[in-house]
Amino acid sequence: MKHLLDARGLDAFLAIHNVRYFSGTSAGKAIILPKKGDPILICSRLESDQARQESWIRDIRVFSSWKAALRRGERVYFRKPWQLIAECLQEIDARAVGHDGMREDLIRKLRGAYPISYLELPELVLDLRKIKSREELRLLRKSAKIALRGMNCAAELITAGRSELEIAAEAEYEMRKAGSEGTPFPTIVASGKNSWLPHAAATEKKIKKGELVVVDLGATYEGYASDMTRTFTLSPTRKQLRILQLVKLAQHAALKKVKAGTKAKTVDMAARTLITRHGYARFFTHGTGHGVGLNVHEPPSLAPTSEDLLKPKMVITVEPGIYVPQVGGARWEDMVVVKDKGFTLITCRKD
Amino acid sequence: MKHLLDARGLDAFLAIHNVRYFSGTSAGKAIILPKKGDPILICSRLESDQARQESWIRDIRVFSSWKAALRRGERVYFRKPWQLIAECLQEIDARAVGHDGMREDLIRKLRGAYPISYLELPELVLDLRKIKSREELRLLRKSAKIALRGMNCAAELITAGRSELEIAAEAEYEMRKAGSEGTPFPTIVASGKNSWLPHAAATEKKIKKGELVVVDLGATYEGYASDMTRTFTLSPTRKQLRILQLVKLAQHAALKKVKAGTKAKTVDMAARTLITRHGYARFFTHGTGHGVGLNVHEPPSLAPTSEDLLKPKMVITVEPGIYVPQVGGARWEDMVVVKDKGFTLITCRKD
Repeated sequence: MKHLLDARGLDAFLAIHNVRYFSGTSAGKAIILPKKGDPILICSRLESDQARQESWIRDIRVFSSWKAALRRGERVYFRKPWQLIAECLQEIDARAVGHDGMREDLIRKLRGAYPISYLELPELVLDLRKIKSREELRLLRKSAKIALRGMNCAAELITAGRSELEIAAEAEYEMRKAGSEGTPFPTIVASGKNSWLPHAAATEKKIKKGELVVVDLGATYEGYASDMTRTFTLSPTRKQLRILQLVKLAQHAALKKVKAGTKAKTVDMAARTLITRHGYARFFTHGTGHGVGLNVHEPPSLAPTSEDLLKPKMVITVEPGIYVPQVGGARWEDMVVVKDKGFTLITCRKD
Repeated sequence: MKHLLDARGLDAFLAIHNVRYFSGTSAGKAIILPKKGDPILICSRLESDQARQESWIRDIRVFSSWKAALRRGERVYFRKPWQLIAECLQEIDARAVGHDGMREDLIRKLRGAYPISYLELPELVLDLRKIKSREELRLLRKSAKIALRGMNCAAELITAGRSELEIAAEAEYEMRKAGSEGTPFPTIVASGKNSWLPHAAATEKKIKKGELVVVDLGATYEGYASDMTRTFTLSPTRKQLRILQLVKLAQHAALKKVKAGTKAKTVDMAARTLITRHGYARFFTHGTGHGVGLNVHEPPSLAPTSEDLLKPKMVITVEPGIYVPQVGGARWEDMVVVKDKGFTLITCRKD
């Protein structure tokens, strides 16, 4: 981070939306990353013990918006959070501060309290976050492994007569017991007419024979998300089998392009071209994939308009989908780690 | 909303963070609420079918950032979302537009495409959302009822030797089967040394005799959150029983103040005074409660610095807590609907 600050002529970076990334705890409200010296984590009194327990940051400053009696040895700044942030910026003598996106009123208050230059530069952190550290890769692999357990659980349960919700509940329960902290997005179990809505969740609808069933789920492990999709069939029609076969072929074509140095849109195009060649272009209504990390959707984007370049240690999904009204929807999604020569699949049993 | 726009001299309001509140679907990216005429929902192609199915908004405009083949009868604007927003604002001839908080770069692009006056007014919607409609109250009651089922499930399972995570998993599973779409915050099962961290989640730690166990959980029902806390004891010490008794007494004192026309800080002060009188002031490190709706934490705030006034149909939590290191933590939390004369408890069996 420090060289990025240097390159942009910044004295510090103030992160509001990326606190967990820089501190290892979700208990902080903001973090100040100075060009020189140690980071400062700002957190509320309510969450200060948790922050101290979870974070590797040593300089933790605690605010309380109201005066209150304190425990022995407890140190609290009786300030609004933005006042404490302004004081910290002054303390490190910052003149130009980058930030990852604040509401106008917060910026206005900060400027009022400590009038220096504040620059909105969210892409600076987003770029950094695209490339995963060794520890992040470990957590993402673990998260993907838990998702796979959930998917296997769902696969066993899919039969005519069971409700979408029941299957989602069982899969989530399985993941929770395996250490997931919760789902990073609403679990999708979409059967029949729900299957051609790419983002339907799970309803009371019972699964019937002759339907496609899309299951899209993920786990969260120490904050890190996972995301995978399988499509199941129950006595499918030929048209349904065709759709399912095509998304698998499209995923295969896309994966063959994945390696460091490839443009993200080239991967998308590989899937899109295959689907287009078979006449289903108008039913593939989304991009081919996205990065995964602390957020389940983060850069890079694998879409026709993407300007991202794949690099080693990026973690992405590859997930073409075809949604034909009155017939069925299918999507096939895996998470991979980009490597110099190809990729490693992390949503599979071998891992 | 229209009279609020009038009062502020606005021609329209552009909501980014409150799309679900105004549209009934989570599939939209933005909604434009004009002073005259019907609202316009902006959504991506990926989510357009879902939006049409879930929303009561009829004018839905769909964007795609890239050119693509379309299904028969499908209408898509091949634009970036901000371009489509700018065109819609131009179409309704808006000159002054309020919004609920956009990133600087988005504002800059909008201003570039359609240079009018954009005013950040998030509190306008937050104020509106404090007072719940009849339908919202129905959903919040249902959500609270599901939370109560989860709590009863946890209560049955708390015994020495079981892990916090196991209890959280079972309670969440119970809520999921009862129709919850997921937890609005990480379920807290905090025993022993975790109990004095107000926001600890649930760990592999096994519950032991002689510990306090704080369980804080919630459900989500059609987007609406619930939030309740109970504290359980296993062969407690006298000090632990004292803490538990005090939070219950403090909650009782606070609830006695709840009615329309009371200042929110008066409710907080009732709990705080009781706890202070018994010498535990320094261990009550947070506010007494908060509003609940589509977000689990939303205005009003029940804290010493709050300027909110309680009004009929607000839904709030009342949740004093005491956290004594080396002894134990306790919190007791219920959700109530504010009434002209008092309140209705909605996290209880009778409801």
